[in-house]
Amino acid sequence: MSILVFGHKSPDTDSICSSISLTYLKNKLGVEATACALGEIRKEAEYALNYFKVDAPKIIDSLNPDDSVIVVDHNEYAQSIDGLEDANVLEIIDHHKLGGMKSNLPLSVRIMPVGCTCTIVYNMFKENKVEVPYEIAGLLLSAILSDTLLFKSPTTTELDKIAGEELSKIAKIDMEKYAMDMFKYGTSLDGLSVEDIVHMDFKEFEMSGKRVGIGQVFTMDIDSVFGKKDEFLVYINSTDYDMLVLAVTDIIKEGSYILYKGEDSVLSGAFGVDASQGVFVDGVVSRKKQLVPNLTDAISASN
Amino acid sequence: MSILVFGHKSPDTDSICSSISLTYLKNKLGVEATACALGEIRKEAEYALNYFKVDAPKIIDSLNPDDSVIVVDHNEYAQSIDGLEDANVLEIIDHHKLGGMKSNLPLSVRIMPVGCTCTIVYNMFKENKVEVPYEIAGLLLSAILSDTLLFKSPTTTELDKIAGEELSKIAKIDMEKYAMDMFKYGTSLDGLSVEDIVHMDFKEFEMSGKRVGIGQVFTMDIDSVFGKKDEFLVYINSTDYDMLVLAVTDIIKEGSYILYKGEDSVLSGAFGVDASQGVFVDGVVSRKKQLVPNLTDAISASN
Repeated sequence: MSILVFGHKSPDTDSICSSISLTYLKNKLGVEATACALGEIRKEAEYALNYFKVDAPKIIDSLNPDDSVIVVDHNEYAQSIDGLEDANVLEIIDHHKLGGMKSNLPLSVRIMPVGCTCTIVYNMFKENKVEVPYEIAGLLLSAILSDTLLFKSPTTTELDKIAGEELSKIAKIDMEKYAMDMFKYGTSLDGLSVEDIVHMDFKEFEMSGKRVGIGQVFTMDIDSVFGKKDEFLVYINSTDYDMLVLAVTDIIKEGSYILYKGEDSVLSGAFGVDASQGVFVDGVVSRKKQLVPNLTDAISASN
Repeated sequence: MSILVFGHKSPDTDSICSSISLTYLKNKLGVEATACALGEIRKEAEYALNYFKVDAPKIIDSLNPDDSVIVVDHNEYAQSIDGLEDANVLEIIDHHKLGGMKSNLPLSVRIMPVGCTCTIVYNMFKENKVEVPYEIAGLLLSAILSDTLLFKSPTTTELDKIAGEELSKIAKIDMEKYAMDMFKYGTSLDGLSVEDIVHMDFKEFEMSGKRVGIGQVFTMDIDSVFGKKDEFLVYINSTDYDMLVLAVTDIIKEGSYILYKGEDSVLSGAFGVDASQGVFVDGVVSRKKQLVPNLTDAISASN
């Protein structure tokens, strides 16, 4: 019976691409294996699969007790498929903290503190002297670019960078351009209304007696917002908040564009910028650690 | 602060030798590490340390919460030092089933279904292109010979055999002879009385109304028993059991020498041998699966 290979629930690009790539490697080594996914493919992974013309893995939501499985990109029951406790886990390949799984038999576990599971899988190709074909190189690289945010995440290691460099040659890809296109597609706001976007991740606060709403959206699809800037402002001003800030956060540029209802002086005070609709605030990426305390202080100071 | 490297409680040869060898490798790679042991060194490991003139690791029985550690030859809290849950576990190298440990941070875990932790450590030397010196080769090999019972254990893999072959050349050792000497020293019955040996692992059974005692001792130090055969028989015959069998089990020859109080015909019936004191019964190594059922049947048949 074929061994099932899968990443975590709500699969990201690494979970999808490491499942497919490790399955390819296992097949090459004579082991019958099938890549699976524990949920719908997200847009970012879809971009990689489309670009390299690879079929999406089959989605599964349950196991039989006699299934043999290989677990990638996670090692915790809570993040995995129901019934994993009773399945025969043959192997775990991951880059997260140790999650308390148990087995009845000795197995292979390879956990490394690197930025991406696909970096480990790529090294397994090398160790086993199996050639990495074009489309597998593309998927491995897509996951590495995704997990390390184009090598800018603090989780990035030298091994991830070396893997990225080597894979980009096989996949014939300009990493910077490809990553940007993939991130943009992955964070696309297409089809969402102005109201949807403002309330996508929205929280309300009370600051010095004022009702303040703060929405944040992580996207590199800035055009979707700025192309409809006036519509956003009409909607934001129509709300009954004393102040409302929408932060459109670009994780690569490490800052946020802000649209707001409120006094310019408060916004200037909070973020040290000349307040204007859509101004880019360098370095501000966290609502909890930056947006909320800065606004709280600025509103308090303006009273 | 130096990283503490240790195997399981009640350390066997693999726990001792993998701690020392991995510590040597880490030091060579520029990481400050100290080999430790979670208990007294047993005689078998002592043989290897003496032969290759290596100091025993320091024995520890507690950790500070800020200690950083590398865990070898186990991956379960119950088998490890108190306080491991709160320590900073940097790495785990093991060949056992997965034991449910958790970590707060990503770490390195290398678990492989091979016969011995030292086989994995040896491969880490190769991967890191660090030369294995004579005495480290000797310790790695000692652990492999111990855990695989000179490659006869069913847990033995091709990787263990290859490691053994290569290490035996560096350590300049005849594996067969060295293993026998080490096993003999490790299972020595020196200093134990006849009564101690008979009762070392002794159980009493009722078979067809008869009181039957069965003692078993695993040793390759057969001479310690056979040199005092008459003393053993005087003692055994002085007991008030209807039948008493002492099985002196040689795990390498995969059989047991038996000394007994009882009827020759029953012994012959039970084990298919010409009953005589000290006769070798080929293939009989388990009290539960062989000694007890065979004797039960033979006593029942003789009634």
